[in-house]
Amino acid sequence: MRKALIICNGEPEQKKFLAKACKGKYILCVDGGANTAAKYNIKPDAIVGDMDSVSSAAKKKFASSEWIQVNRQDNTDFEKALNFIKQAKIKDVTIISATGKRLDFTLSNLYSAFKYLKDTKIVFESEFFKIVPVTGVRKFKTRPGVRVSLIPVGICKKVNLKGLKYPLKNANLKVTDTLTLSNEALAKEIEISLEKGRILVYIEK
Amino acid sequence: MRKALIICNGEPEQKKFLAKACKGKYILCVDGGANTAAKYNIKPDAIVGDMDSVSSAAKKKFASSEWIQVNRQDNTDFEKALNFIKQAKIKDVTIISATGKRLDFTLSNLYSAFKYLKDTKIVFESEFFKIVPVTGVRKFKTRPGVRVSLIPVGICKKVNLKGLKYPLKNANLKVTDTLTLSNEALAKEIEISLEKGRILVYIEK
Repeated sequence: MRKALIICNGEPEQKKFLAKACKGKYILCVDGGANTAAKYNIKPDAIVGDMDSVSSAAKKKFASSEWIQVNRQDNTDFEKALNFIKQAKIKDVTIISATGKRLDFTLSNLYSAFKYLKDTKIVFESEFFKIVPVTGVRKFKTRPGVRVSLIPVGICKKVNLKGLKYPLKNANLKVTDTLTLSNEALAKEIEISLEKGRILVYIEK
Repeated sequence: MRKALIICNGEPEQKKFLAKACKGKYILCVDGGANTAAKYNIKPDAIVGDMDSVSSAAKKKFASSEWIQVNRQDNTDFEKALNFIKQAKIKDVTIISATGKRLDFTLSNLYSAFKYLKDTKIVFESEFFKIVPVTGVRKFKTRPGVRVSLIPVGICKKVNLKGLKYPLKNANLKVTDTLTLSNEALAKEIEISLEKGRILVYIEK
């Protein structure tokens, strides 16, 4: 199965981490994310966005990459990237640098990802954490002792947690609840399921 | 009316900005927020939390401040602080360093503030932006050209925006919508109202 890596224009990651994350993946830069790729000599397969943040150095360096300029203003550059991944029928995507810098974009990126879960498995990743938008059931490989926070996005019904220090059984959560913050993995695998709603799962590395 | 400043344990602010924000306010540090106050010689009126992140230097330095140790684990230190403000009947609070560092806490702090809006006017503030949790109607002083993003928290009904480049009239929004990102103030004052729901209003400085 083809996997993709999306490099956004948020907080840049370290070269070593980014180079490892790129391995064997289709690499798509979101607008100014191309500047990070240029800095680290990572050649993207494609660059998508309205290109208002791409440096002229990156434009020159990646002249042979595919440039998908989309000027529609009714969605974000990040959504343009996820639309592209969906059309390319890539079912597994890791997203880098979607958080950090502008907090309004951080929030928007995390939330809008939920619209694409039907078609694509999505993980936001940094050197220090993973954030996974979850609906339905999802299992994660982890390590005992790792901190896990669940952030309900709206109303969540019948939430179940397995493999965590503070388990939940058929719990209903709402967006203002903080009870599911700073939980802790007990096992090498944890399972999160919910009958209705959306949860952001934050897993420390 | 008494005003309060809450200093949290997220991304610390610069001394100059923080010192200005403190002026004339009741100063409450949340746990490790006391370390920032100690670094900048800003004496808090009180420190609240389970105190697991307060340095021994800060403990010594602020021995004469009020120490409110609350070990209950069913809410966050940030909520302990907002409960304290509510009990002290302070109706206006600015919150500093509630964002940054750990992203799970950033999200949790922004969301859980909505529980306190009935009793207290709340603004999250940094040197570069304000974030205001809004229900009902709220006006903001601003400047033409300033970027304003609205982040719906769940379903929002009949949202109206005045004084912005892309106004809205009786719009319904949901959490995955990104249309209200990167709007722009046209006037010195903007007004946001919604009949039902919650919105985070991000205003660049």
